[in-house]
Amino acid sequence: MQTSSLNYETIIEQKLAELSFNKAPIELYEPIRYILNLGGKRLRPQLIFIANSLFEENIEDCANAALAVELFHNFTLIHDDIMDNAPLRRGKQTVHEKWNTNTGILSGDAMLVIAFAQINKIKSARIREIYDVFNTTAIEVCEGQQFDMNYETESNVSVNHYLEMIRLKTAVLLGGSLKIGAIIGDASEKDGNTIYTFGENLGMGFQLMDDYLDVYGDPSKFGKQIGGDILSNKKTFLLLNALQMTKGEDQIQLNKWLAITDAGNTEKVKAITEIYNRCGVDQLALDKMQEYYDKAYKNLDSIDVPEHKKLQLRAFADMVSKRAK
Amino acid sequence: MQTSSLNYETIIEQKLAELSFNKAPIELYEPIRYILNLGGKRLRPQLIFIANSLFEENIEDCANAALAVELFHNFTLIHDDIMDNAPLRRGKQTVHEKWNTNTGILSGDAMLVIAFAQINKIKSARIREIYDVFNTTAIEVCEGQQFDMNYETESNVSVNHYLEMIRLKTAVLLGGSLKIGAIIGDASEKDGNTIYTFGENLGMGFQLMDDYLDVYGDPSKFGKQIGGDILSNKKTFLLLNALQMTKGEDQIQLNKWLAITDAGNTEKVKAITEIYNRCGVDQLALDKMQEYYDKAYKNLDSIDVPEHKKLQLRAFADMVSKRAK
Repeated sequence: MQTSSLNYETIIEQKLAELSFNKAPIELYEPIRYILNLGGKRLRPQLIFIANSLFEENIEDCANAALAVELFHNFTLIHDDIMDNAPLRRGKQTVHEKWNTNTGILSGDAMLVIAFAQINKIKSARIREIYDVFNTTAIEVCEGQQFDMNYETESNVSVNHYLEMIRLKTAVLLGGSLKIGAIIGDASEKDGNTIYTFGENLGMGFQLMDDYLDVYGDPSKFGKQIGGDILSNKKTFLLLNALQMTKGEDQIQLNKWLAITDAGNTEKVKAITEIYNRCGVDQLALDKMQEYYDKAYKNLDSIDVPEHKKLQLRAFADMVSKRAK
Repeated sequence: MQTSSLNYETIIEQKLAELSFNKAPIELYEPIRYILNLGGKRLRPQLIFIANSLFEENIEDCANAALAVELFHNFTLIHDDIMDNAPLRRGKQTVHEKWNTNTGILSGDAMLVIAFAQINKIKSARIREIYDVFNTTAIEVCEGQQFDMNYETESNVSVNHYLEMIRLKTAVLLGGSLKIGAIIGDASEKDGNTIYTFGENLGMGFQLMDDYLDVYGDPSKFGKQIGGDILSNKKTFLLLNALQMTKGEDQIQLNKWLAITDAGNTEKVKAITEIYNRCGVDQLALDKMQEYYDKAYKNLDSIDVPEHKKLQLRAFADMVSKRAK
């Protein structure tokens, strides 16, 4: 019987708690404990277990890989929060706010090294492949963050560049986590690559849905403020397409509203949403999202294991792709 | 015949030049190229080759390990310069000065990941041991940097804590580089540990000499401003011992001068140097340094390879330990 994802969560939390960060210098290790204790859904580490369950199960190796991925992910959160000057993370003070920027930089660095140290505990004979996936993913996430920062100030960002940025910043780590789980299970190269692409496509769909929900989400279900992206002029899939598609008065109006940057302007959210509606970028986003999800399901179908082995991963894909519109 | 260290330098520069950082996003990769091109003595990567030459030579594996260590070292320079707010590195603008802090953080992160990617190119069957040494060293260097920052503001830093800090911040990376070279050469565990301790001791002696030369060095030979540590109240081996050893009027005078923090005060340098002379911390530093160098030579003697194999490493130890007093 397959271990349920509830059990995976328990294993992950247990292993995280076992990591001893209760040592000197406390200024280095306390922020690591702090950010890990802020919680989060632990999606990426769970994906390692779920992917692994399609092949030869190895809980111990998965647990170490899961910690590595979760440590890596949280390292990026600490450093990204510094770069984005973010005061809050999961409703609590960010590390650099609670301590200071230097602490954030150095604790993040230590966390990245500790992530690698976790990888080295994996006993799989295919350890070098696992390192390759982890390294490639890690460097791509850095590239994604750099593109994201660049695009904040660049005036001509194409939709394709935006899609490539979210692929690097978000999707590859889902793909990489899945692929590591598959390699631990001694999956074929082909299946390893397919499950990676599955994760990438799922991640792309998820991120596009995030863009969509920011404008069209149900305020009672969506965790963030509706229209937050509009108010901050964030170059999302919706805005970048609208900038290309609008003509005449709509184009003039869109640019006028983009020039108004005082936060909390509900009029701006309303006006830009109406422009989005008129040029149909809402449907465009849903179509593009569906395109990625369709690809993901095709990837899932083509993984060469019996269907009953895929139930958990399929359930995960359903959970992601059927997020309330 | 053993490859000379001149050849090692050539190999290192060649391999560094081969790393392709000429890609997008240029904002991420250009700073990496920039700091690597600032030069430096490439001591740590050379140590890998030299240590390896005592055992089974493997130039290819050493070259990849050498790049990893040099990339790691330069990553620490970028992030340390941000934390220390340093405007210059090797006489040129630091990365965060030339670009900005965010660029320094992210390029440094990428560099650390690329360092790990270099390790993964090492073909040695003992790759996991190499990762262990690299990980342990890397985390210790982070700890050392944290202690160093802590001690800037702590009022009661003991000499032993200071010695532990410089061990972590500086010495372990010399030891780690040597040990990696030895493992690549399939050295015994005992020899690997001995060469590590040798490097650690040599590094400790070197750092203490640095403290000494900052006050007692020949201005024409010492690269930095004489008395720089005194002017910045840096808690060096000399100051920490003087704070413990001075009594009566000297103690009052020392504390008086420490309270005067306007830079460029040659009177302060003169007065504190005289206090150092009176309580004999100059000789104490030289004695402590010699103690470390003596240990290093004993470590060198006890490595279980024929003496002629050790000539290069011995020459390196001589070069370091006979630095002009």
